[in-house]
Amino acid sequence: MNNAQDIDAATILSMAKRRGILWPAYEIYGGLAGFFDYGPLGTRLRENIFNIWRRYFVFGERCAEITTPDVTPENVFIASGHVEEFEDHMVQCSKCSAAFRADHLLADVDPDVDADNLDLAGLEQALNELNIVCPDCHGSLSSPKPVNLMFETEIGLGNSRHGYLRPETAQGIFINFQNLYRYFREKLPFGAAQIGRCYRNEISPRQGMVRLREMTLAELEYFFNPKDERFEKVGRVLDDSLVLVLRPGTELQLTVAEALEKNVINSEIMAYFVGLTQRFLIEVGLDKNKLRFRKHQPTEMAHYAKECWDAEALTSFGWLELVGIANRSAYDLSAHIKASGQELSAFIPYDEPIERKVPTVKIDMKALGPLFKTDAGRIKAALESLPIDQLKDQENIKVSVDGQEFDVPNNCFTIKMEHEKITGERIIPNVIEPSFGMDRITYTLLEHSYVEVEPPADVETETDDSAEEGSAAKYRVLTFNPYVAPISVGVFPLMPKDGLDKMAQEINAVLQKNNIRTYHDESGSIGRRYARMDEVGTPYCVTVDYESKDDQSVTIRDRDSHSQVRVKIDELVVVLDKLILEKPL
Amino acid sequence: MNNAQDIDAATILSMAKRRGILWPAYEIYGGLAGFFDYGPLGTRLRENIFNIWRRYFVFGERCAEITTPDVTPENVFIASGHVEEFEDHMVQCSKCSAAFRADHLLADVDPDVDADNLDLAGLEQALNELNIVCPDCHGSLSSPKPVNLMFETEIGLGNSRHGYLRPETAQGIFINFQNLYRYFREKLPFGAAQIGRCYRNEISPRQGMVRLREMTLAELEYFFNPKDERFEKVGRVLDDSLVLVLRPGTELQLTVAEALEKNVINSEIMAYFVGLTQRFLIEVGLDKNKLRFRKHQPTEMAHYAKECWDAEALTSFGWLELVGIANRSAYDLSAHIKASGQELSAFIPYDEPIERKVPTVKIDMKALGPLFKTDAGRIKAALESLPIDQLKDQENIKVSVDGQEFDVPNNCFTIKMEHEKITGERIIPNVIEPSFGMDRITYTLLEHSYVEVEPPADVETETDDSAEEGSAAKYRVLTFNPYVAPISVGVFPLMPKDGLDKMAQEINAVLQKNNIRTYHDESGSIGRRYARMDEVGTPYCVTVDYESKDDQSVTIRDRDSHSQVRVKIDELVVVLDKLILEKPL
Repeated sequence: MNNAQDIDAATILSMAKRRGILWPAYEIYGGLAGFFDYGPLGTRLRENIFNIWRRYFVFGERCAEITTPDVTPENVFIASGHVEEFEDHMVQCSKCSAAFRADHLLADVDPDVDADNLDLAGLEQALNELNIVCPDCHGSLSSPKPVNLMFETEIGLGNSRHGYLRPETAQGIFINFQNLYRYFREKLPFGAAQIGRCYRNEISPRQGMVRLREMTLAELEYFFNPKDERFEKVGRVLDDSLVLVLRPGTELQLTVAEALEKNVINSEIMAYFVGLTQRFLIEVGLDKNKLRFRKHQPTEMAHYAKECWDAEALTSFGWLELVGIANRSAYDLSAHIKASGQELSAFIPYDEPIERKVPTVKIDMKALGPLFKTDAGRIKAALESLPIDQLKDQENIKVSVDGQEFDVPNNCFTIKMEHEKITGERIIPNVIEPSFGMDRITYTLLEHSYVEVEPPADVETETDDSAEEGSAAKYRVLTFNPYVAPISVGVFPLMPKDGLDKMAQEINAVLQKNNIRTYHDESGSIGRRYARMDEVGTPYCVTVDYESKDDQSVTIRDRDSHSQVRVKIDELVVVLDKLILEKPL
Repeated sequence: MNNAQDIDAATILSMAKRRGILWPAYEIYGGLAGFFDYGPLGTRLRENIFNIWRRYFVFGERCAEITTPDVTPENVFIASGHVEEFEDHMVQCSKCSAAFRADHLLADVDPDVDADNLDLAGLEQALNELNIVCPDCHGSLSSPKPVNLMFETEIGLGNSRHGYLRPETAQGIFINFQNLYRYFREKLPFGAAQIGRCYRNEISPRQGMVRLREMTLAELEYFFNPKDERFEKVGRVLDDSLVLVLRPGTELQLTVAEALEKNVINSEIMAYFVGLTQRFLIEVGLDKNKLRFRKHQPTEMAHYAKECWDAEALTSFGWLELVGIANRSAYDLSAHIKASGQELSAFIPYDEPIERKVPTVKIDMKALGPLFKTDAGRIKAALESLPIDQLKDQENIKVSVDGQEFDVPNNCFTIKMEHEKITGERIIPNVIEPSFGMDRITYTLLEHSYVEVEPPADVETETDDSAEEGSAAKYRVLTFNPYVAPISVGVFPLMPKDGLDKMAQEINAVLQKNNIRTYHDESGSIGRRYARMDEVGTPYCVTVDYESKDDQSVTIRDRDSHSQVRVKIDELVVVLDKLILEKPL
């Protein structure tokens, strides 16, 4: 749609700010790095993306969305390993106390240093060799120190508990495994999703919308039986073509089917979610030619992960990770089983119950009773709980009951072979997790949808606010899909008088009642109103003109072709519904 | 619909837990007071309520929804007054360190004490007189201490900034006033809404879902010109009948129109939002007979508020505040103007520009220039900025420019009366804020929708999980409105075989594609499946039976009447859409 090289983030953010899409947060107080507000149009845009995500990852797939808190007591993240996670390395200025990421400072000074793959000692050595000082005040820097990026807080007063703001929504799902398993009628596979805020106390976030301290993730935890190697639904995406990166610098184009055959993607279930992720991103409106999937090297994979793919998009920041799809195996559930002592497992019934003969002890109470009297009952229970092997081939069995020892002669019991039916086994489910950075996806959509074109003949550009220093007036359009655009239809009277205004208001009310997102505007020339709608990506504009009074019809203008069709007011809802919703249904 | 006295919260929460509506959070780790999870059905239920709220308070009313961060730097809440707010009083046990709210302890011991209205000294005296000790360990208690209930955190590492988790979404809206004003084309009135998480570090929350440490508020900040006393939209709700509480213990039934006439409600705009709030709560499904509006006494009103109403619902906890509607006047914007130095004001054009004569100084450069040479320009500017009064009736004017003093003879200027056109004035908008506790509303909906009835003839009750200790099996129904119910339609084959299963799956897929929320279930008797749907409030069940194969029709069962109608499969989407959506459109 456009050429990533032509765009810079400043252009996108300035347009997004002017049009009520994104605002830097806390601006009247000087701003705060890593925080953004969504304005009226940004909030709707994101909500539309959420709803597409729900269609792909929640509805109709034995999946459900849940909602868990942000504030989390420490023990959850001790169990999950997050408290012990120190992945970033901070250096601090001895003079001005400013903090920086060691790898970022190195990359700024010498882009050839492979800072991502340096350990603590390697980072320190490289910082020293390059004589790197504080970029703000030129003070000397401390040694790099590994830091944990969770926001901390205290829960309660008095006997307060230490807590964290969640860095991911996933743990809120894992610790609810039992509730979810029951909800899904104790059958695998099933998925639990969550769209929610997550927090990472980044050391010094610099890249605007793409490195946030407070972000929204949409995550699906899909629980499955690792012994089921087949995953039927993969059939839906087998023919989809993917661009895959297995090693830095080399791209490979394969269909999902080919990637499975060549063992580039290791399982059908992973292949399904890679394919589904690409379909989702394209439906949102990202440019398929700027998407690729990068496989994690074994060395960079999180310790729990078996296989991990990142969906990346080409942006003005280069290739940017939008989605991580990880096979987290049974890591998280196992960790919470260990820490909580609860049984977070699933029962897998065998197709046919297995019958087998097992040796079983039968107590002869007629012999045992008279010998041990009131202790006999407890001795019986103790004998039955002993391993059969300890009962065999001995004349007297030593049994310990509540600290007391008893010698039981072997005529008090017999050992018989009995049939036992085993109907299944308990397993710890494995998990595939597609985790979507919704802020990055929203931002990337702005970049991929942004075009600068010659102004169409039917518009009038707004010189007041679209002109920028030293540049000729540009005509900007966001080419959003109709069902993603924050405004679906602009509704205008040609002139705000002669009854046209009233007709437009009435049409606007009818469209809104029918859940069509409209923007009603009466002010300025019709050309300016079209231009404003083009810039925020509104696909259709309905105009009430003087003919409308005679023939009860209006025009619908198309954002991309600028063509207009005349439609009866009676049919407007049906026609617009079809135009807006055609693709997703 | 039911009698509040018959219900207790434990019954509701146990049903809500079993059915995947609400789960106590962090349960596998022993739980944590003040935190709840929404399960799959609870998440959908709440989302449906959010969308009704958006229809009432956002769409089509010159209102927009925005999204701002939870983590907030300290200066925002210093400006707003939240950092200085110490409304709750904590006592702490000297033995076990447990913390309690002083007023709650008093109310537990002696319900007649009016703990709400005691100040710090009064609380201390009452605690001493009643000899109150720690309810957990009987240790002695500290003196009550005022505490601030915001969760604290540090933002960033190195030069970190102190921050808080927001206790309300409102401040994120106020500090964006300039952006919003621009978005609404610099015209009042307009509203900005936000649905988001808020946090209050309650001392020792005990009442389950109604006192949460992490909650979701839906807030609208409606900015208006306080000089506009008329608010046309109030016309829509004038005939609505309200139950009003002006003083404890006395209820008054008035229409909105009557409440305005009698000055019980002080302004049309407040009256509109009180009426709209009641309509919203009723549409969600709350019982109109258990709703009332309580006017705040001047003594209990927040310091910034001019007029404040609470919407209260009768629940098993007694009358519970669900919504606060406050006239916050210009308090918040003024506070942020003062703290940030930014202009958060609106320009109100006069109907007709006002013309007036104003004295203006005219500099005679022919006189001034030769006298002061290169300083003349700066002296001119200094003269023009002086108050006219200082220029009158003097021979020499002393002017100070960059620390240098000049004597300017009065022949260098003249004072003339000139016409000035004043087109309007800048004002600080006032704000009405309806603020909705969405968790309490959701919980109250469960209570108001819950009924126990004789099992209908067509169901089979589940003895496995609905029976409770010492109670006969109860038949439970949630009487949700169709458009609020988390599941709109259950889709079942009569038997999971003979092709009925396949037909049901196909119908299910078609309904889902048409955005109808279905639950597809094949297991257990049809009577049990109906019973499960009744308990989660699903209004309609579609059953594929043996006739369906012959006549391509299915039955639709109504939850409340248990009657069934036969409908052609072709017409199913249209018929169900009408049933589900009829009311809200």
